[in-house]
Amino acid sequence: MRIAFTEELQFISDQLVEMAGLTATALDQATTALMEADLDKAEAVISADEHIDAVRRDLDTRAVDALARQQPVATDLRTLVTAMRMSADLERMGDLARHVAKLARLRYPHQVLPKELNATFSRMAEVAEALVNEAARIIRDNDVEAVAQLKITDDEMDDLHRDVFRTLLDDDWASGVQAAIDATLLSRYYERFGDHAVSIAQRVVYLVTGQWDDDFLNVEERLEVTEVKS
Amino acid sequence: MRIAFTEELQFISDQLVEMAGLTATALDQATTALMEADLDKAEAVISADEHIDAVRRDLDTRAVDALARQQPVATDLRTLVTAMRMSADLERMGDLARHVAKLARLRYPHQVLPKELNATFSRMAEVAEALVNEAARIIRDNDVEAVAQLKITDDEMDDLHRDVFRTLLDDDWASGVQAAIDATLLSRYYERFGDHAVSIAQRVVYLVTGQWDDDFLNVEERLEVTEVKS
Repeated sequence: MRIAFTEELQFISDQLVEMAGLTATALDQATTALMEADLDKAEAVISADEHIDAVRRDLDTRAVDALARQQPVATDLRTLVTAMRMSADLERMGDLARHVAKLARLRYPHQVLPKELNATFSRMAEVAEALVNEAARIIRDNDVEAVAQLKITDDEMDDLHRDVFRTLLDDDWASGVQAAIDATLLSRYYERFGDHAVSIAQRVVYLVTGQWDDDFLNVEERLEVTEVKS
Repeated sequence: MRIAFTEELQFISDQLVEMAGLTATALDQATTALMEADLDKAEAVISADEHIDAVRRDLDTRAVDALARQQPVATDLRTLVTAMRMSADLERMGDLARHVAKLARLRYPHQVLPKELNATFSRMAEVAEALVNEAARIIRDNDVEAVAQLKITDDEMDDLHRDVFRTLLDDDWASGVQAAIDATLLSRYYERFGDHAVSIAQRVVYLVTGQWDDDFLNVEERLEVTEVKS
């Protein structure tokens, strides 16, 4: 029984890592769809989100079953509760990747973004994928020490977010309101994707240390997008 | 022991209803701050969010403690797991109200929105508050039947969201890119607030019926904001 439970916890942990990989792939493909107005890639991301949702459902069902059958306490209990929270973050990250893909599909065959924003959004995608891949490694290795570095990486996301708004509010912006709206939403999707990755990493800290910390419960968006003064 | 546990479940349910009331008040005050460029109201909302976070922490700690000490199964287990999910929704709703308040504070003493958007956003606030108040009643009364109506109410939010974008993309829009960015983000904050209220109501369905349903796990934004063609 005990061995079976340990195996079940490991399986759930593997599912979290799998979900992280799926969301990284989704965001990568969604970004290609966005940059290259690639309809097939956009459709692929939109369809694949169902798989992410399915893994989450399976994970959550397993976690609730394990709570009912194994009646865990202490670390095992925290592991299951935290796994369900992480699965919620990861599912949301999948949704955000799908939002990017849907916008690419909506504007197809046109580009969503004017050229001057391509570099910033490409970098946002790289940072977001680095964050989720690192969060997955932190889950796998219980590597609490790495969380501080992850937050520093996320600071770059905040800077990029600011860059987007600086571009939109520049006098040279000639792409109009529709493109500004699209860029605003896209920027928020990438930033929130990064936030959830940081949230996941912070949950590992809770798991390992047992300490709730204010940051843990609520990954605050550390920059309000609108705090770029024009 | 059994009576104490029943009381604890009731206390947690009461905390959810309390949190719902706090988020409704926060959004109401934030909307006043937004419409009237009222800095005091904005500050009040921003400060009060800490209280919402504190109630959530207390609720989640109680729920984890109850899982550890009472080892519940079946309905009681589902109740605790679901309560933690609802508390996450409610905390996020508090964050969204705070985002609205922060934007009012940032632009103070100026109005964030041009006059032609006031009516739409006032109505969005009314609908959002109606949704969370109704969600609270559904929690209190376990009123699964009322969820269908709640979703219909949320459809109005989607319509309002579309109205915002229609206004921004109209040839008559003369308020520039900054105001368009602000309105885009605000519209998304109100819409997401409503989504979380619907999510909470759907979780009550899970609790009462034991059925996971696809809608439950992931309250989809049923309208991509960008799906308003210009």
